[in-house]
Amino acid sequence: MLRALARRPVEYTPVWVMRQAGRYLPEYRQLRARAADFLTLCKTPEYACEATLQPVRRFPLDAAILFSDILVIPDAMGLGLEFAEGRGPSFSRPVRRGADVRRLSVPDPEESLGYVLETVRRVCAELDGRIPLIGFAGSPWTLAAYMVQGHGGDFLQARALLYEAPALLHEMLERLAEAAGRYLAAQASAGAQALMIFDTWGGLLTEPAYEEFSLAYIRRTVEHARAGCGPVPIIVFGKGAGSCLERIAACGCDAVGLDWTVHLGRARERIGGHVALQGNLDPAVLLAPPAAIRAAVARTLEEYGPGPGHVFNLGHGIAPEVAPEHVGVLVEAVQEFSRPYHRPPDRCPGGEDKKEGVTS
Amino acid sequence: MLRALARRPVEYTPVWVMRQAGRYLPEYRQLRARAADFLTLCKTPEYACEATLQPVRRFPLDAAILFSDILVIPDAMGLGLEFAEGRGPSFSRPVRRGADVRRLSVPDPEESLGYVLETVRRVCAELDGRIPLIGFAGSPWTLAAYMVQGHGGDFLQARALLYEAPALLHEMLERLAEAAGRYLAAQASAGAQALMIFDTWGGLLTEPAYEEFSLAYIRRTVEHARAGCGPVPIIVFGKGAGSCLERIAACGCDAVGLDWTVHLGRARERIGGHVALQGNLDPAVLLAPPAAIRAAVARTLEEYGPGPGHVFNLGHGIAPEVAPEHVGVLVEAVQEFSRPYHRPPDRCPGGEDKKEGVTS
Repeated sequence: MLRALARRPVEYTPVWVMRQAGRYLPEYRQLRARAADFLTLCKTPEYACEATLQPVRRFPLDAAILFSDILVIPDAMGLGLEFAEGRGPSFSRPVRRGADVRRLSVPDPEESLGYVLETVRRVCAELDGRIPLIGFAGSPWTLAAYMVQGHGGDFLQARALLYEAPALLHEMLERLAEAAGRYLAAQASAGAQALMIFDTWGGLLTEPAYEEFSLAYIRRTVEHARAGCGPVPIIVFGKGAGSCLERIAACGCDAVGLDWTVHLGRARERIGGHVALQGNLDPAVLLAPPAAIRAAVARTLEEYGPGPGHVFNLGHGIAPEVAPEHVGVLVEAVQEFSRPYHRPPDRCPGGEDKKEGVTS
Repeated sequence: MLRALARRPVEYTPVWVMRQAGRYLPEYRQLRARAADFLTLCKTPEYACEATLQPVRRFPLDAAILFSDILVIPDAMGLGLEFAEGRGPSFSRPVRRGADVRRLSVPDPEESLGYVLETVRRVCAELDGRIPLIGFAGSPWTLAAYMVQGHGGDFLQARALLYEAPALLHEMLERLAEAAGRYLAAQASAGAQALMIFDTWGGLLTEPAYEEFSLAYIRRTVEHARAGCGPVPIIVFGKGAGSCLERIAACGCDAVGLDWTVHLGRARERIGGHVALQGNLDPAVLLAPPAAIRAAVARTLEEYGPGPGHVFNLGHGIAPEVAPEHVGVLVEAVQEFSRPYHRPPDRCPGGEDKKEGVTS
């Protein structure tokens, strides 16, 4: 997976699944029942480590991703994160006025998010280098959208702030970029070998606003992270940002995560010369029977075509109603069907270097 | 508005607002309280006519749009539409199996949707030609998404059908295209002077699936409508379909409705030579104060630039929490600020033809 992110040769296309640690797994639901609520699960390193490892035990995945939530940063900023049963996240103290913004301080990761770093250390000790752990953070705009609105949805109030008080929003985003960048760097220092920035709600913005309020602060986040942790590969996932791929690819990241609406082959033509691509099977495919899953995996691999630089994933998080066996079908199909698309990696001089069964 | 749809010269950019008849208006909420539920409101021509006319009385809008819902077609197909208080629409008999699809028959508009046609006749009599009435239908894919899922959301089950049983979905979409096309033609015959197809959920599809399962059946819908009603202008609104504008513009429609994420100027460069454009102010702007609304209207008009072919609108429906006065600010700003972008329309020979105050 790390070789693929560096666009170096691999034997097969590595694969992991967004939200692979989650509700579709019965063992996760059992674990979840032991914690008082979702946030307690995130904040208890023993539980969060276990949740991170569950999918890795069940499937031959090529990466683990930290079990956590993007909203732990605003929680560490004092907004009072809650996950009420059967509803999404909400903040008891959302950001509404200028004074609320000026009160926001950039949390020190070791002090305020130490439970995440402890989870990272535990997971890395358990994985023992077999596969990399991906750490992550929300993009500043995505965090700000929740923080202003106070909950999920269409984020109309947060979007209105763009027009009503852009300077205030910029101030908020600048602090969030520093917070997210330092948090990512701290995860890398604790052992995460790749980092991902989720820009889940950048696609709600107009094209110029996307550049000004989302992408500019993803760039700042990447800068802050790089300053703190050096050359750890960074993936930027932009949902609904298909029209801005060139600009995302130029933000300083190593890979761009694509949602399922983007054509992977055309995305490769546009930006595959600069960054690796991650994605982008329609998550709905996993509700279809195994034969349809295999066919869709084959089509996605064909869209990308031969050669390195591809990390297979869904184009969005896995749905809770997916049968776990279907994830097994997906992972197996990727690892099997992708081999003909890759030359064997260069071996040491004198080592074996058979090139049979290779199409590219 | 009809001249703008035909890309002929106008004095100012015409404006109407998606969901202009709706919950942000106190007089609508009063009317709504008199009907047992939302569906009764739609099905009672007296009420639906009143709801259609309310925004037109309050604001100098350049078009009225029928007060109704896209789901009246599946309701007429026997799926049992319900609008539970505080939740979205749902069907008591969703489409789940092949037998459910084969049971679907194309409703005769006069027989099964006569209440809509009666509303159209009443509204047109009241408007008396002062401004046009826009009739509408959902796109086949958007209707199918609700019909398979049974309710709104991410439509995962409906999307899974694409992979699991594409032939069945095609059969369903073919019937829906005929149903929507005949229904649109009937609205035009009853007096509607423009027609609109809402493809609200085409943006959930992958690029090839969008072409195969959404756009192909929008094209069929347009054909069916044209066969029944002749050259009434047809607008196709594609939410989240910014990457497919060229193909939408070539589907046989007269105008393309754009969501707010698309840059209007670049959309005009891409397709403005072929069709009129409708849109696309961010609906969140209407939550900001009047000065910000005026500035955003000015920016949108500037993005489109001088000349005909633009119908001003939001890029999505108006939110219930908008202050009605803000719609007044919007309409006034469009009608005032847009004049310099238009030459006066050609007058009869010998008539006055002053061209002062024109920038283009």
